[in-house]
Amino acid sequence: MPDIAFINGRFLAWEEATISIDDRGFQFGDAVYEVIRTYRGNPFELASHLARLDRSARELSLLQPYSRDQWMRWIQQGLSLSGYQDAKIYIQLTRGAAPREHSFPSENRPTVVMTIREFHPLGPEVRRAGVNACTREDLRWGRCDIKSVNLLANVLAREEAKKAGVFETILVRDGFVMEGAVSNVMAVQRGVVMTAPEGPRILSGVTRTVVLELAKKEDIAIEERFIPADLLYQVDEVFLTGTTLEVLGVVQIDGNIIGSGQPGPITRTLAARWALLTG
Amino acid sequence: MPDIAFINGRFLAWEEATISIDDRGFQFGDAVYEVIRTYRGNPFELASHLARLDRSARELSLLQPYSRDQWMRWIQQGLSLSGYQDAKIYIQLTRGAAPREHSFPSENRPTVVMTIREFHPLGPEVRRAGVNACTREDLRWGRCDIKSVNLLANVLAREEAKKAGVFETILVRDGFVMEGAVSNVMAVQRGVVMTAPEGPRILSGVTRTVVLELAKKEDIAIEERFIPADLLYQVDEVFLTGTTLEVLGVVQIDGNIIGSGQPGPITRTLAARWALLTG
Repeated sequence: MPDIAFINGRFLAWEEATISIDDRGFQFGDAVYEVIRTYRGNPFELASHLARLDRSARELSLLQPYSRDQWMRWIQQGLSLSGYQDAKIYIQLTRGAAPREHSFPSENRPTVVMTIREFHPLGPEVRRAGVNACTREDLRWGRCDIKSVNLLANVLAREEAKKAGVFETILVRDGFVMEGAVSNVMAVQRGVVMTAPEGPRILSGVTRTVVLELAKKEDIAIEERFIPADLLYQVDEVFLTGTTLEVLGVVQIDGNIIGSGQPGPITRTLAARWALLTG
Repeated sequence: MPDIAFINGRFLAWEEATISIDDRGFQFGDAVYEVIRTYRGNPFELASHLARLDRSARELSLLQPYSRDQWMRWIQQGLSLSGYQDAKIYIQLTRGAAPREHSFPSENRPTVVMTIREFHPLGPEVRRAGVNACTREDLRWGRCDIKSVNLLANVLAREEAKKAGVFETILVRDGFVMEGAVSNVMAVQRGVVMTAPEGPRILSGVTRTVVLELAKKEDIAIEERFIPADLLYQVDEVFLTGTTLEVLGVVQIDGNIIGSGQPGPITRTLAARWALLTG
């Protein structure tokens, strides 16, 4: 069962899967991407991911060369070739190769890359125990709603988590919680789920949307507002959402125990609903 | 006289000059760079550019695999192969290829890319007349002092300039002038040259430093402070500095005429001193 590499409509051997040093994805981060996972071979929320890819591309006036149907065919073909049941599909769309000049080239053909690799989900014991997190200043740019590959701030934040020996870094801007370096952050206080509103300061997660819908179905109140960072240590529950994380309880932040020190009842309810949805 | 491509110690034909789709420069913008120009075949301020490359790399804990002497040899070799007298040398250093994961890979070998292309300087008539600019909100991240390839905000700002039919976009944050999308910005009021101070909000330009030294030699007063954006239309002179721009007068910003509508006396003095230095 091989890892799959795909460039511009062709499946390739990994060693042939290369791009020009003049690609704008390489020289400017002038590119957008998506990560999609499968459950038992089926891409989860594929239409939502492809819609977000289109939106990110549109915000950057980036040409998206394939229709959704075409994408779905490539993805199915790639999944078949890989044979993976639990797969992580990575799609990257760049403004293509052109002699280096910041402004958009007058003529260019986008570069489309896809990889498919085996996905190793978090173990049940990690989910039961919950994870630790740290907070750090959000250094990202002003358009976090675009899923671009300008990811250096996220890379540094993830490295901070690794150095601190915790699972995730929660990004704080002007005293408010934005999101995690690779996740959205939700907090529960007196039965209300709070999470940062959509807008330029966060990436609107596909999982975030599905989890908020699950919460509504459970009649759990939702407040989309920025959570003050100093409130975070005092709330009843905190959890992360994300394509690869699903619904994941946070039990300690910057060394402060959250709630009872275990994933709380609303976190567990939403994680159970998620499991039903995808199981 | 060919354009030159170089990867990891080897000069290559352009069509062979490719990198892995798993390169972190491509997937995360996890890379730093420099642009150096030559005057009559000689790289200008090469030591300063290589020192800044080292600094950028160090700030990202990125391994810089070559010594300065080694770099100088590669650059000289590349320049000889190209035959260009006026050349633009582009160097990019990435954290190398590794399966996609935000945090730093435990083991990796950096990717080093260099290109050398012919450089076409601005014509004397453009320099005499000066250029127009527009202002836009600075959307960049919190570490603009690192010369990384997370350049999407700069790309969009340059595209805004092109759409507005002007030469450069001046980036404004919280009401203050930071720098241009590909330049530093200096303003002159009552004989004093003002420019944003070094720090995380600007990239400390090699040309900026040389120009400030030239100004000191001319006994021109310098104030390194953030210029209020609304002052910009009212100052006596505005000019840009940069590796490829040198010292370039700005005569109109957002449709407002600056000073007399021509490059002012201090701009012309510093441009003349620059020409002497490099001529």
